[in-house]
Amino acid sequence: MTRFKLTIEYDGGGFVGWQRQKNGPSVQQALEDAVFAFCGERVNAVGAGRTDAGVHALGQCVHVDLARAATPERVRDAVNFHLKPAPVAIVAAEVAPADFHARFSALRRRYLYRIVNRRAPLTLARGRAWLVMPPLDAAAMQGAARLLVGRHDFTSFRAIHCQSSSPVKTLDSLVVERDGEAIGIAATARSFLHHQVRNMVGTLKLVGEGKWGEADVSRALAARDRAAAGPTAPAEGLYLVGVDY
Amino acid sequence: MTRFKLTIEYDGGGFVGWQRQKNGPSVQQALEDAVFAFCGERVNAVGAGRTDAGVHALGQCVHVDLARAATPERVRDAVNFHLKPAPVAIVAAEVAPADFHARFSALRRRYLYRIVNRRAPLTLARGRAWLVMPPLDAAAMQGAARLLVGRHDFTSFRAIHCQSSSPVKTLDSLVVERDGEAIGIAATARSFLHHQVRNMVGTLKLVGEGKWGEADVSRALAARDRAAAGPTAPAEGLYLVGVDY
Repeated sequence: MTRFKLTIEYDGGGFVGWQRQKNGPSVQQALEDAVFAFCGERVNAVGAGRTDAGVHALGQCVHVDLARAATPERVRDAVNFHLKPAPVAIVAAEVAPADFHARFSALRRRYLYRIVNRRAPLTLARGRAWLVMPPLDAAAMQGAARLLVGRHDFTSFRAIHCQSSSPVKTLDSLVVERDGEAIGIAATARSFLHHQVRNMVGTLKLVGEGKWGEADVSRALAARDRAAAGPTAPAEGLYLVGVDY
Repeated sequence: MTRFKLTIEYDGGGFVGWQRQKNGPSVQQALEDAVFAFCGERVNAVGAGRTDAGVHALGQCVHVDLARAATPERVRDAVNFHLKPAPVAIVAAEVAPADFHARFSALRRRYLYRIVNRRAPLTLARGRAWLVMPPLDAAAMQGAARLLVGRHDFTSFRAIHCQSSSPVKTLDSLVVERDGEAIGIAATARSFLHHQVRNMVGTLKLVGEGKWGEADVSRALAARDRAAAGPTAPAEGLYLVGVDY
């Protein structure tokens, strides 16, 4: 058996998320089916990030074990052929050590949340960003974002059904940048709680609108209560950009 | 009557192009129908660029004359409401002088052509860029692009059915830039012949692949024969970025 590390990109719009589920098509299933079509092997594709329904990926990392001898380039091209027409593609493939684990070996996950801040409805970015109509103060959002960086109990930003053993996580960075009408919020951490990025973004939006100040964000974090923080930002603005090992 | 200048954005994928046609939905028709739904007036929406089927716009400029008294913001928001769910939106509206003409007053049209240069199929950029698998030498493409800048007879890059009175145009700039796997080709001119940008891109791709050199591009330009230049690049990579007045 050879372990392959695959870097994959997808439009999460039509999927129930990364993970295989009974209620609809998952990215994991699409990938596993394409591997089967290529080599007749039923693999378990292990992903670094279990992205939710509608969440996109530019650099999800996955490992699979194959008995079939093949170069990484051949695996990439052949599986991509069988993935069509699903909006999922392997952008890079390499042979990994047998002890490499896409999920447990990950040192850092990088997410990007895209907001388009304007009055006009989205056209080309529809399903690819969160349209926020009230003018947002990105500098104020950045100021509040700094309060969330570091090691904290993130219970207030954690989905009710989150399965993580602990709500304590270390957020390495959270950076808000405006480029014209586009606002990008980049978050990096070794791991995140379920909905953590989207809940932080929903909270920062309140700051951007001027409804909340930095003290409100500090209070929300300290409350350790999901109801104390802002709403969950929509899935369609979130991208798993990359995973570092 | 008040003349309004509208800056509009659209995903050209589902349209037969900007211009009203009998064989399918056009952006012009969608806009005119939305104006009618707003104020009951049958307007003629005049666009700066008659983009082809599948071509996108970030900043198409349009003028319409309305009898209904309304602020530009009201026109923008109300027409956008009626445009839904079409992927067309007015991103800016302003009152224009009565002699402003979206097409004839234009001093410069700016287009961008997006290539994604990689082996993997497109996912998030599907329908939004041209996937070119062989590695392209962007510096060589830039070198050849310089030969096309200036005032020339562009017959070799002109669609057979182009209705322009003259094939002589002045290309202000043609710039090829690579950013990772993305290659952008930006073209600016007062006006373009039909398919001119796509035909120039299809020719530059031959240079990027190493199949053509600069001498071949010069020869193609001098031939004044469509058959002498490269193929037409697909519509889905082309964006009308903006129009200057």
